[in-house]
Amino acid sequence: MVESLVTGEENAFSDSERAAVYRAIAERRDVRRGFIDRPLPDELLNRLLAAAHSAPSVGLMQPSRFIVIRNPAVREAVHDIFKKASAKAAERYADDQKERYLSLKLQGILEAPQNLCIVCDTNNERGRGLGRHSMPETAAYSTVCGVQNLWLAARAEGIGVGWVSILDPVRLREVLHIPEHILPVAYLCIGYVDKFAPIPDLEFFGWERRVPPETAVCHDFYSEDNKS
Amino acid sequence: MVESLVTGEENAFSDSERAAVYRAIAERRDVRRGFIDRPLPDELLNRLLAAAHSAPSVGLMQPSRFIVIRNPAVREAVHDIFKKASAKAAERYADDQKERYLSLKLQGILEAPQNLCIVCDTNNERGRGLGRHSMPETAAYSTVCGVQNLWLAARAEGIGVGWVSILDPVRLREVLHIPEHILPVAYLCIGYVDKFAPIPDLEFFGWERRVPPETAVCHDFYSEDNKS
Repeated sequence: MVESLVTGEENAFSDSERAAVYRAIAERRDVRRGFIDRPLPDELLNRLLAAAHSAPSVGLMQPSRFIVIRNPAVREAVHDIFKKASAKAAERYADDQKERYLSLKLQGILEAPQNLCIVCDTNNERGRGLGRHSMPETAAYSTVCGVQNLWLAARAEGIGVGWVSILDPVRLREVLHIPEHILPVAYLCIGYVDKFAPIPDLEFFGWERRVPPETAVCHDFYSEDNKS
Repeated sequence: MVESLVTGEENAFSDSERAAVYRAIAERRDVRRGFIDRPLPDELLNRLLAAAHSAPSVGLMQPSRFIVIRNPAVREAVHDIFKKASAKAAERYADDQKERYLSLKLQGILEAPQNLCIVCDTNNERGRGLGRHSMPETAAYSTVCGVQNLWLAARAEGIGVGWVSILDPVRLREVLHIPEHILPVAYLCIGYVDKFAPIPDLEFFGWERRVPPETAVCHDFYSEDNKS
């Protein structure tokens, strides 16, 4: 069996193409504010979903399912879940940290005309289990790879994406009719924005600072020597 | 507090930049064969690690740690783990499926001059737990977003990446000295290749076929109506 392969040279990215990929990676932001009240055209949304769908998946199982949420009542119900989970989270912080936590804008569920819940069909038999006998969590990880594909494609399209994880998954299942065998992985707010922040919001508002990559690298064996 | 924001127009990707991002997403492959025995320069590898490190992370915790493995003895030990896990996986298939499984080339641990184990420091207190009280799995998911960043950057650089999940995580921890509080997320083989396959290997060799994205989409509530 001879595979039709394209050689490296024919297949190489130009310098400007390579730079564009790094640009998307560097300028992607977790967007929680500034969404514009103008729905995405279906064609554009479908490009983003196709980008997510084409992510690597263990055994080529393609386990991700995309719930596109535009219905305002459904978004209201999810927003209620957020409010409760966030109030509960706030209780874990003392005094000034709590005040600062409560001042942060952490989601755009109602402002973004589209929300997207990406779930994983972990029992899916496609791929015949290949690659997930010893690490079954790779099914959910495949779905997360799709989230990141979508996020980068969206940045290139000028579309903001924010991941909301301050949600009780049990309540989320109820509202979105997600059955037991399906795992909710990511809840995203998606929409046009007129700007992207130059640095992450959590850094801008003083919650946390990024550390440089070299603090995260070790060689041959795990070590915390470089840890910040 | 006034944030220095860049407006949408100044910040927009050009058509060719946008196309480059989609190209990386479409032409990324899970590479298991064809690695060239030429180590990556440190500068290039560091660009890939920085791309992974700049992935979104819940609460800006940046939990990923990167174990760069070049030592042949370590790669041999990991390859042994793969062989055992793969033999065990093969036992789950009957007859012709088993034969087909055993004929697949599923990793390039020894051929790729660099292996990379990406782990997640799930107890990391950076970000003060923000965003992961109700969904603690988002720490590991943050690490997976980094895997996908690296994978796309690597494609743009002409570098092949393959994710090996046929490994016993307990044995992997032993070999790489990964302590209990650190979660092994992804084991990657990374190296120069002289070509990228036009379609996934598992599809080319008849193990599984991709389904179109529209089979994975539903609206407002979870539904399996479109399921392939």
